[in-house]
Amino acid sequence: MSKRDEGADLHPIPGESPIIVLVEPQMADNIGMVARAMANGGLFHLRLVKPRDGWPNERAIITSSGAHRILEQATVHDSVDDAVADCHRVFATCPRPRHIVINTRNARAAAEDLRTANAAGQRVAVLFGPERNGLTAEDIARADTLVKYPLNPAHNSLNLAQAVMILAYEWWMVEEPSPPRALQTHGTHVATKGELDNFMGHLLDELDACAFLRNEAKRPGMVRNLRHWFERGEVTEQELRTLHGVVAELSRGRMIRGRKERE
Amino acid sequence: MSKRDEGADLHPIPGESPIIVLVEPQMADNIGMVARAMANGGLFHLRLVKPRDGWPNERAIITSSGAHRILEQATVHDSVDDAVADCHRVFATCPRPRHIVINTRNARAAAEDLRTANAAGQRVAVLFGPERNGLTAEDIARADTLVKYPLNPAHNSLNLAQAVMILAYEWWMVEEPSPPRALQTHGTHVATKGELDNFMGHLLDELDACAFLRNEAKRPGMVRNLRHWFERGEVTEQELRTLHGVVAELSRGRMIRGRKERE
Repeated sequence: MSKRDEGADLHPIPGESPIIVLVEPQMADNIGMVARAMANGGLFHLRLVKPRDGWPNERAIITSSGAHRILEQATVHDSVDDAVADCHRVFATCPRPRHIVINTRNARAAAEDLRTANAAGQRVAVLFGPERNGLTAEDIARADTLVKYPLNPAHNSLNLAQAVMILAYEWWMVEEPSPPRALQTHGTHVATKGELDNFMGHLLDELDACAFLRNEAKRPGMVRNLRHWFERGEVTEQELRTLHGVVAELSRGRMIRGRKERE
Repeated sequence: MSKRDEGADLHPIPGESPIIVLVEPQMADNIGMVARAMANGGLFHLRLVKPRDGWPNERAIITSSGAHRILEQATVHDSVDDAVADCHRVFATCPRPRHIVINTRNARAAAEDLRTANAAGQRVAVLFGPERNGLTAEDIARADTLVKYPLNPAHNSLNLAQAVMILAYEWWMVEEPSPPRALQTHGTHVATKGELDNFMGHLLDELDACAFLRNEAKRPGMVRNLRHWFERGEVTEQELRTLHGVVAELSRGRMIRGRKERE
């Protein structure tokens, strides 16, 4: 049983996963949606600085869509200083320009840095400001790193949960092991070249029988085109069996019609 | 004036940007939040297949947070087939496992493929299913590619707008030119090594004067440590001017005290 499962006294283990700190969040609904976004990306520690609607709050439970354990274990703080006092690193996010000198990271680079800091056993907090105005310059001065979301400058209006969602998504993606591109085959497997050749032989025999390939000059090119198409589709052995059936049935129809026409 | 600005008759230009297709969306609020997410990531074309709450819908305008032009230009369709009839490529997103054989992409790879298809002048649609159950296997059979969101398997509950947000974010990130890591300096510039040396000289003079560096054996290491710290912080020339003032003022205090003590 991990420390996380021991109940409400949870204190985030350094290097476990980053802590999301919502500074003066206005709507309880948004706190719940933040918890949902966090759970999607594998983040579990939430701290709230002076939540406007009070805490705990039933609205947040409703919008968390099952991520209520994050809410149950969230802690409430009087100030940003109090919320980050035990953290080794503090990242801040802010959609508005602030005239401060600070290291900046886009969300992807920030996630990589969070993983690095975490792997080094550091406890890291990421600050998100109030919905309306974002963090103050004073709040950001508590941070060592500013996270920027490089989005459409003509319409940059991430809401609080979306901002947390993108960070949580990038956090998850840093160590995502599944391949970016794959064929999902569900139980069946891609046909071997031998199985495909066998089918191509079947098809060509039938096409020759119905004289579709009768133009000897064009025959090689037509055969090659057909083969290209079947190769490109990464056909599975199950699909090939269906295709064998299709060719056999179409041919049978032709043979029956042929027989009738001869009658 | 781009074609996009000509009004409600908009027909997406092939290769311009992907079309988001919401298949039987249930809540109009969610359609507005999808438009907001699209605008954040630079997507503009929305098609709706049988929206449950009817269309147009005031709720959607409210939740779109200023992205109402996307809603005004959205088109409504009776079927998925109708919505994608003019598209060269169709991607589908679905959180639930479907027993189909299909090429899969994670959201990042899908965004790269969208950019590639777009650059080749293809009109591409991305299907998102109803909130409750996602796309049917029948809908997905209209697609050539299935987009997967690699998120926490223990709590994978993206809502519709979040799913669109992540795709739109990845779409934007493919061609995002700003550097992932930078120092934001706002008008001032990072000090040159000469400026830093000049300050270190000032500081060391004063530290020698007050005998802080009196241990000759330890002096080189202490000086090196101080230099390491100042080098690491990428100090700006404006901050250096402040630091010069700090050192001068602290020294003046010491000198005044020294004078008083001698009196």
